[in-house]
Amino acid sequence: MDKEFYIPQGYRFAGVNCAIKPNSTKLDFSLIVSDKPATVAGVYTQNLNCGAPVIYDRERTPGRGFHVIATDSGVANACTGRVGLFNARKMAEYAGEAVGATGDQTLVMSTGVIGVQLPMNRIAIGAEKAAAKLGTTFHDFEKAATAMTTTDTKIKIVSREKTLPNGKTIRIAGMCKGAAMIGPNMATMLASLITDAMLEPEDAQKILRASVEDTFNCISVEGHTSTSDTVLLMANGAVDSTPLKGEDLDVFAETLLDMCKELAPMIPNDGEGVSHLITIDVYGAPDRESAKKLAQTVANDALVKTAICGADPNWGRIVSATGRCGVPYDPSKVSLKVNGFLLYENGTPVAFDKQVVSDSIRNNRDTSFELFFQEGDASIRFWTSDLTVEYVHLNADYTT
Amino acid sequence: MDKEFYIPQGYRFAGVNCAIKPNSTKLDFSLIVSDKPATVAGVYTQNLNCGAPVIYDRERTPGRGFHVIATDSGVANACTGRVGLFNARKMAEYAGEAVGATGDQTLVMSTGVIGVQLPMNRIAIGAEKAAAKLGTTFHDFEKAATAMTTTDTKIKIVSREKTLPNGKTIRIAGMCKGAAMIGPNMATMLASLITDAMLEPEDAQKILRASVEDTFNCISVEGHTSTSDTVLLMANGAVDSTPLKGEDLDVFAETLLDMCKELAPMIPNDGEGVSHLITIDVYGAPDRESAKKLAQTVANDALVKTAICGADPNWGRIVSATGRCGVPYDPSKVSLKVNGFLLYENGTPVAFDKQVVSDSIRNNRDTSFELFFQEGDASIRFWTSDLTVEYVHLNADYTT
Repeated sequence: MDKEFYIPQGYRFAGVNCAIKPNSTKLDFSLIVSDKPATVAGVYTQNLNCGAPVIYDRERTPGRGFHVIATDSGVANACTGRVGLFNARKMAEYAGEAVGATGDQTLVMSTGVIGVQLPMNRIAIGAEKAAAKLGTTFHDFEKAATAMTTTDTKIKIVSREKTLPNGKTIRIAGMCKGAAMIGPNMATMLASLITDAMLEPEDAQKILRASVEDTFNCISVEGHTSTSDTVLLMANGAVDSTPLKGEDLDVFAETLLDMCKELAPMIPNDGEGVSHLITIDVYGAPDRESAKKLAQTVANDALVKTAICGADPNWGRIVSATGRCGVPYDPSKVSLKVNGFLLYENGTPVAFDKQVVSDSIRNNRDTSFELFFQEGDASIRFWTSDLTVEYVHLNADYTT
Repeated sequence: MDKEFYIPQGYRFAGVNCAIKPNSTKLDFSLIVSDKPATVAGVYTQNLNCGAPVIYDRERTPGRGFHVIATDSGVANACTGRVGLFNARKMAEYAGEAVGATGDQTLVMSTGVIGVQLPMNRIAIGAEKAAAKLGTTFHDFEKAATAMTTTDTKIKIVSREKTLPNGKTIRIAGMCKGAAMIGPNMATMLASLITDAMLEPEDAQKILRASVEDTFNCISVEGHTSTSDTVLLMANGAVDSTPLKGEDLDVFAETLLDMCKELAPMIPNDGEGVSHLITIDVYGAPDRESAKKLAQTVANDALVKTAICGADPNWGRIVSATGRCGVPYDPSKVSLKVNGFLLYENGTPVAFDKQVVSDSIRNNRDTSFELFFQEGDASIRFWTSDLTVEYVHLNADYTT
């Protein structure tokens, strides 16, 4: 891993434990620090009850002159009223000042239980501990990625190195977390994407939004858009302080999108109790919005998700799910493939070997649905997980 | 039960086994027969991939001159193309002719697996067997109600007797089935509501639609609107052949609504693997549609439903669910009670005894959520079930 992973220049990382959940020894506080002032763009949850860190960051991005991203896991600081807003600002100040910057040069992310106030004495300790441990290695990066996880079973990190048309070689690296309360748009997911290229704030915002739309906004575990979803893109220009333009910017945007396509499905693939990652391709929808609605309705359907958990090729549930989402289409022109097997063609069942299809689901973690509508040219790819007994166990006893 | 149950006059009932699922001995075919020609109104699924029986009935209702409702359980006759439509018509003919009526005087309902053709030889046998067993007692009614069930653990029946302002005493009785694929609007639910009053077809349609809107359209198990949902209201005028008008019609409509309010929640209460019936009251929403969207989003949320299964008073998930549904409101004016305990007030958490609230959830099958929005005057009541390990077990292996 170490060899293939590209850490962008000019960043330092730390992940520490400060016992945000009492008696826990899990890493739960992280810092990403850029020594040079960086541009940061952000895309956030559309949940009205958004967390205080979302409100804090949204007011400040896109913008320039940032040095720090501070993240805690354990307490989401959402549905926490005015005290929550005060604490988000305070967390930024603690983290910024611990590394010689200010609160205004710091952005914050929080994930965990909703409706509980941040333990600010712990956050202060976390900021000091993390500041003392900042480093530039892959292991430091990995610790920061670990500190943002909650019920995740593994860290989710990716990187890219790319030589731009201007001859400069830049790096992008991303870390994200998320395993439940995952529903577009975005999820209880946090992501920090960092690069050593330089970007104008408006350009950073535009390309981040486009990348998120095709990736983090096309994943779901149970369709619950969380209060806290945040994706930040930080660009510090350590390789070249001239903001990218034209062709260079286009290549950067493609590289970022490509990286996010690898990073985003890691979330439903690590969904709580998941035994299958389901990739849903919708073809021939009337428009993109309809394509997304069709895919998303299938992705969130408990009957579809339990069927896949049980390796049951119950394609009727998939077709039925598309019919209930409000997108108009001609039912006699719909076809469906599961794992490449044609099960339904132009509104009519196709004879197939149930055992063969069931085995192909049972023996592969990756499951593919392809839905064909013949209504237009729009297509979309969407990722979701199956629904298992373990998911229910994990979520029936989260806070008590 | 027998004593309190009011069977409308002029109807005969039968429920028999004809092995629609091979080797099954469960009652799976039923007839409801009115000797007098009856008015029938119908409200149907909004799923585009609706079953062939839905297409057949929808073309014919509201209308007059009907004598028979024939229902099978085991095969839904949905996603079955042209053959399915042909078979629905054939089923009406078999059933009608078996009791001396015609296919055109017969309506049909089917529930069960999607994408499988009806075994027409079995249906023909079922129609003959049922015709030979028609009777007028409570036990005959009960058998017809049993024959429409699939994964239901119990039959769902109610009745009312009411003396109208015109001095006539009329009866209404209802039977319905449903335990999963339950999502508004309606569900994999079938219902036959019968009365010995007489109604004009347009009046019957209007009051049925209004009753369904507040009852069967306000229930959910997992939010999947099925291909086959059907509610029929049959009125044969056995007590008085003059169609109800004015005040009499109003009293009838109130009685029907009252009966449906008792009948509809029986479905989520018998939801597959369910351990809690959750009643969601939304107050102060900007309008009725918004109220419904808010309630429905909470009702379908896997995180909310698993929390209640685990007796976990994780109110953050409830509040968060309302914030993701697209209805605009001021988050600082939202309050929430669970089982009467105030947990969240004007956008801020309220200190409460977790153990006491958890115990009240654990020790009661009925769970109440009250959500207050201070945005307008609209309110709604919605019913759903919790999400349990048993639900996943039952649905992971339905067809295989």
